[in-house]
Amino acid sequence: MCRWMAWYGQPILIDELLFKSQHGIVDQSLHSRMGAETTNGDGFGLGWYGTGDGPALYHSVSPAWSDANLRELASHIESPLFLAHVRAAIGSPVQQTNCHPFRSGNWLFVHNGFIDGFREMRRDLMLAIDPEHFADVVGSTDTEVVFRLALTFGLKNDPIEALERTVGLIEETAADHGVADPVMGTFGVADGENLWAVRYASAGTPRTLFATTDPETIKRLHPENLRFQRLTVDDRLIVSEPFADLPGVWQEIPPSTAVTVRRGGVLEERPFQPTYVPASPA
Amino acid sequence: MCRWMAWYGQPILIDELLFKSQHGIVDQSLHSRMGAETTNGDGFGLGWYGTGDGPALYHSVSPAWSDANLRELASHIESPLFLAHVRAAIGSPVQQTNCHPFRSGNWLFVHNGFIDGFREMRRDLMLAIDPEHFADVVGSTDTEVVFRLALTFGLKNDPIEALERTVGLIEETAADHGVADPVMGTFGVADGENLWAVRYASAGTPRTLFATTDPETIKRLHPENLRFQRLTVDDRLIVSEPFADLPGVWQEIPPSTAVTVRRGGVLEERPFQPTYVPASPA
Amino acid sequence: MCRWMAWYGQPILIDELLFKSQHGIVDQSLHSRMGAETTNGDGFGLGWYGTGDGPALYHSVSPAWSDANLRELASHIESPLFLAHVRAAIGSPVQQTNCHPFRSGNWLFVHNGFIDGFREMRRDLMLAIDPEHFADVVGSTDTEVVFRLALTFGLKNDPIEALERTVGLIEETAADHGVADPVMGTFGVADGENLWAVRYASAGTPRTLFATTDPETIKRLHPENLRFQRLTVDDRLIVSEPFADLPGVWQEIPPSTAVTVRRGGVLEERPFQPTYVPASPA
Amino acid sequence: MCRWMAWYGQPILIDELLFKSQHGIVDQSLHSRMGAETTNGDGFGLGWYGTGDGPALYHSVSPAWSDANLRELASHIESPLFLAHVRAAIGSPVQQTNCHPFRSGNWLFVHNGFIDGFREMRRDLMLAIDPEHFADVVGSTDTEVVFRLALTFGLKNDPIEALERTVGLIEETAADHGVADPVMGTFGVADGENLWAVRYASAGTPRTLFATTDPETIKRLHPENLRFQRLTVDDRLIVSEPFADLPGVWQEIPPSTAVTVRRGGVLEERPFQPTYVPASPA
Repeated sequence: MCRWMAWYGQPILIDELLFKSQHGIVDQSLHSRMGAETTNGDGFGLGWYGTGDGPALYHSVSPAWSDANLRELASHIESPLFLAHVRAAIGSPVQQTNCHPFRSGNWLFVHNGFIDGFREMRRDLMLAIDPEHFADVVGSTDTEVVFRLALTFGLKNDPIEALERTVGLIEETAADHGVADPVMGTFGVADGENLWAVRYASAGTPRTLFATTDPETIKRLHPENLRFQRLTVDDRLIVSEPFADLPGVWQEIPPSTAVTVRRGGVLEERPFQPTYVPASPA
Repeated sequence: MCRWMAWYGQPILIDELLFKSQHGIVDQSLHSRMGAETTNGDGFGLGWYGTGDGPALYHSVSPAWSDANLRELASHIESPLFLAHVRAAIGSPVQQTNCHPFRSGNWLFVHNGFIDGFREMRRDLMLAIDPEHFADVVGSTDTEVVFRLALTFGLKNDPIEALERTVGLIEETAADHGVADPVMGTFGVADGENLWAVRYASAGTPRTLFATTDPETIKRLHPENLRFQRLTVDDRLIVSEPFADLPGVWQEIPPSTAVTVRRGGVLEERPFQPTYVPASPA
Repeated sequence: MCRWMAWYGQPILIDELLFKSQHGIVDQSLHSRMGAETTNGDGFGLGWYGTGDGPALYHSVSPAWSDANLRELASHIESPLFLAHVRAAIGSPVQQTNCHPFRSGNWLFVHNGFIDGFREMRRDLMLAIDPEHFADVVGSTDTEVVFRLALTFGLKNDPIEALERTVGLIEETAADHGVADPVMGTFGVADGENLWAVRYASAGTPRTLFATTDPETIKRLHPENLRFQRLTVDDRLIVSEPFADLPGVWQEIPPSTAVTVRRGGVLEERPFQPTYVPASPA
Repeated sequence: MCRWMAWYGQPILIDELLFKSQHGIVDQSLHSRMGAETTNGDGFGLGWYGTGDGPALYHSVSPAWSDANLRELASHIESPLFLAHVRAAIGSPVQQTNCHPFRSGNWLFVHNGFIDGFREMRRDLMLAIDPEHFADVVGSTDTEVVFRLALTFGLKNDPIEALERTVGLIEETAADHGVADPVMGTFGVADGENLWAVRYASAGTPRTLFATTDPETIKRLHPENLRFQRLTVDDRLIVSEPFADLPGVWQEIPPSTAVTVRRGGVLEERPFQPTYVPASPA
């Protein structure tokens, strides 16, 4: 049910993490270990900050493991901040408009998990989107609606609070529809300057989410790993699923937690607490 | 801006009309003569009645002229009633969920033309869809919304009246949004037993629409044409654009007109008059 | 490394075996149990005999599990004889021209397995193809070259003997190139009247291959299974991997064996013995 | 029958030339004026030099005008040297492996035109390819075979001479097969440091080919055009078809001519004279 990763740090060739890492995201598209499904072959998406105005998107309906263009792009594009996502569709069509990341201006958004009862709630949730942006919903995923709701609730001012209000609205709407525990998953957000990630479930254990520990610890633990020796204090990686089983490299982000990664590798953690505020958009 | 065709009559191999006809719909995908655009290369769709339950759909994002699967299917599937559509996208993505025909149960729907101001009106129009069927909208075209509105207004009981109410609602909504003359186009509907077609514009001359004249006339006019000699009284073809410049074969369907083709090649014509009835769906 | 299935018997809707069977070929595309890879997501192919001239092909680069058109076709096309194939690419591109079945006139061909050292031998093997048909090789798989070689060696007269000569040539060519044990796999061939299947490896145990036992045995063993009760003496299924773990339903085809299924469900078995006959095509 | 363009000069965002130029290559994909076909909708290719090792490729089977990824890449990738190609297939499949540019190491290759009688000559031409590189032919176009032949004849040492020998071989082979005047077209080659282009036909007028005149002339002629005012003496554009009808901007490259563009915008012209040298590759 999807895997994603985000890099924020020194500019690197994207394939360093997509293809050259052991059990990287492309390998996870074929052999996920921690996901609800082992195969995430229903499309791929990459969003990166670099040359040109705003973030760029590459969306593909091919499985990541067989997409020749993806290999080309990953080995010829360098970026200090990018998100990659492999999709396992749950009913909705495999089409580019359903691929993550979603974008609005400078902002990117990815999601792993699902909104239970989305089909029943879709109309109510779409009605809560700022009417000015209603027509921007061009795909059919729950994620796109979550993103438009978060924008409605002020994502561009305070992404964590906006997501707390979004999840609060979804849980309230679910209650109205008799759907229990609708939200399950992790969210990733970036604006080119910061990176945010949330791990949350209305009930039970949410999908996994990990961040790299500080680079000095990683280097000391794995002096033989040349790739790790290049890490600097600026570098952070957030992932649905660790790339390799190296002890000490990954710290699990706890359930009901939001993290912010700021320039320089600074990682801040805070509780994530959905709140329902009756919508009064626009 | 799209071309479509519909066949109702003796069962024939679909490629008789798609590929073997002079200036058939596939040729029109590359060289339309009467359309707003000469190229209709933004996807293809075929809906047919035959073996199995209900109508079948084949939707492709490849241009019709280069789709190898389409040639295979057309030359190996026989049907007494089918609709084919070549698309010229106006802004919305080229994806299978945006390809015509659209389907609900036994019903198929195609459209040539556009709803002016659709982006502004999309929310209001989607709110008028029967809430039960809101989540069935999975693409991003105006046509899909028109179809869901028509279903809301009783398409399955009286397709022409439902389309009159749908167009009436769109014109009313457009007025609210300060959009003049929103509807322009032709519509095709089938349920496996009948075929309906509408030609209408809120103002000006609508997109073209033609029906074949009665087979005896065609045969007498073109005794040398072997394909025409096989036509029976049961056979009717409705097209956005005539297949070939043969005099006497095609009758133009007048603006603001709806036609019904019933079994046996019967063609009935009536005025098409949009009416606004405040929505009280479901 | 690919899975295939072939049906020969009473005409049935294709989805009876593709989607409605427990652990059918589409399920095997995502969760193969006996294959070298669990995922066969690098394209799909279906070839069937029915309406129209000769067999029809549907080739898709989408994984079988997410291909909306495949579901449509399978539930609306009926056939007494068809082959389906899910692909796990080993290096060669995911493109329609690399999807099985391959076709020549009335003949279809599928393959599960690989030719070791194919890259090194490709030129020599292509030179052995009848020059008249050299230009018919439009993809880049080993299978297509094997098929063209088999046609060169008389596939249309005696498919088993032609495959024995083809495999003989490959083994001889491999020896010249210092490649040991180049052939590993199963082959399926059909001409609309008969179905042939081969299981062979130059060394070691070849990929698995199974045929259904006689329908009376199946019915007696599983009286509660309604699908099985509809089987007649005419019906045979050949598969890379059994559809479900029902004891008594499947008989394994031994290594180095060729089987012929004739009309009426007749299954004949004979040894498969590669022979090298210096090529003198055309 | 294809259109291509090449830029060599100051690093620019690719969409400056692909999308922002009046009648640029993407517009030519839909409305070519000088091509044998007005529509070039059978795939797109882009090859660029920039970040990462060697040139990057983006190949798409979507028409250029509707490819969302292409717009993203073009507006977020900067390059001092790139080639773009829109394809109109003549019989061969629309697949990524048939999209230009073709690549070998640091070298890129594009082609507009065709080899007449290619189907008949394909085997003989492929036999003339250096056997070491035979297996590198993975698509089914004439262009890929021309490229592999040119590599065999020393493209990486002297691209013009290698193309002269390649065309010489093709003309000789055509004579053997009774094919008259087989070569028609233009070729583009780049190695990251230089750009070469050839215009040639065995008989008659070859496909068109143009280069920009020196930037000072362009600026003086069109002082009102802001885009042109940014041109420097380093900048050259080679195109199948001029981007806009601005007098003085474009100079036609004469038939049977090869040009070399060196760093600094230097344009050298020499005759292109096919020569047949019996092949002794490797």
